[in-house]
Amino acid sequence: MKNSVCAIIAAGGSSRRMGGFDKLFASLGGKPTLARVLDAFQACGRVDRIVVVVSQDNLTKAQELVSGKEWPKVSEVIVGGERRQDSVANGLAKLNDCEWVVIHDGARPLVTPGLIERGLEAARESGAAVAAVPVKDTIKLADPKGFVLGTPPRGNLWQVQTPQIFRYDILAAAYRNLTEDVTDDAALVEKAGFKVKLYAGDERNIKITTPNDLAVAEALL
Amino acid sequence: MKNSVCAIIAAGGSSRRMGGFDKLFASLGGKPTLARVLDAFQACGRVDRIVVVVSQDNLTKAQELVSGKEWPKVSEVIVGGERRQDSVANGLAKLNDCEWVVIHDGARPLVTPGLIERGLEAARESGAAVAAVPVKDTIKLADPKGFVLGTPPRGNLWQVQTPQIFRYDILAAAYRNLTEDVTDDAALVEKAGFKVKLYAGDERNIKITTPNDLAVAEALL
Repeated sequence: MKNSVCAIIAAGGSSRRMGGFDKLFASLGGKPTLARVLDAFQACGRVDRIVVVVSQDNLTKAQELVSGKEWPKVSEVIVGGERRQDSVANGLAKLNDCEWVVIHDGARPLVTPGLIERGLEAARESGAAVAAVPVKDTIKLADPKGFVLGTPPRGNLWQVQTPQIFRYDILAAAYRNLTEDVTDDAALVEKAGFKVKLYAGDERNIKITTPNDLAVAEALL
Repeated sequence: MKNSVCAIIAAGGSSRRMGGFDKLFASLGGKPTLARVLDAFQACGRVDRIVVVVSQDNLTKAQELVSGKEWPKVSEVIVGGERRQDSVANGLAKLNDCEWVVIHDGARPLVTPGLIERGLEAARESGAAVAAVPVKDTIKLADPKGFVLGTPPRGNLWQVQTPQIFRYDILAAAYRNLTEDVTDDAALVEKAGFKVKLYAGDERNIKITTPNDLAVAEALL
């Protein structure tokens, strides 16, 4: 189907930093964090289809969650790989009929339909757009012993979030050349030589990686 | 007095991003944020003296706050300059009898005595130490139009906080050469050719710059 927009919810992580407490199913305002992500993508009129990528350990639980009728756009729940990028690659393999791919962290439950839509709009020109907010704190580059090597000018630095939106052919080409470890999908696309545009993210769109973050997300809700 | 440790609380900002709501006197768990900062420095056994630097607008209010007996280490409240570094320079001018200077943002109310002490310990070898936490999100370097120029490896990047601790003579030398705008004091010290060591900060030690941050700090308390 042409013009279709497919979302990959990357939720294959192991919640190592949560002390055994699974961030995907942790209750946030009385609802699992993953359910909040699915609510936003279901409510976004531009999104046609959702693929959820989870760890082997979470497969049954995630399948149970989506078995109801709340999120009809979810077409499948699949198992991810070892690294984040392996999980996205598994999702991408299911989506060869899409024109646009929206990748989102399963651990960013405060995403909104508006944030997804703005990303699709921003990606129209260059084919790749990434939500980002200005870096607030000073960032230092340091050597492995903790001595400062330099302070890059803060005005040029952005803190990247998801959604990250790519034209399917660009993302597929970037993933075909995949070799090194990266921390976000845009880095692969950059390495493959494509232009990536930043668009205005949301300070509230935080990533849950520690129990502290969950308390913060409760406060932001 | 030799071996003395003096703190400069840099609170000269104008709270522009708070929509008229002053972050210094905003109530956090029933107490002004500035009072929480003073509590931590008063309670830290290694700190001998505290100088508070505020904007002209906040001078009377800050003087009233410290006029009680809660924080006997506060020796004066003075008015800052236009930029953060001007405020610190004004504070520094009062401290020529100190051996160590601890600079702290007035807008980081969740600082603890332990965090201050660890910084003084870390500064002993190189003469300069800065609290920092690992960067969690991917950081992008972008051009002014928002196109990504690169993704520096996240493992080498640190998000800097305060306290920032300096031997007095190092900080004074760095400030004598002061010309460019910087976003933290360590950057001046680095530019002057001194070594700066990062030490383990605290994820909870956030900076209040928006009303959102205040809600987050409430949750972290």
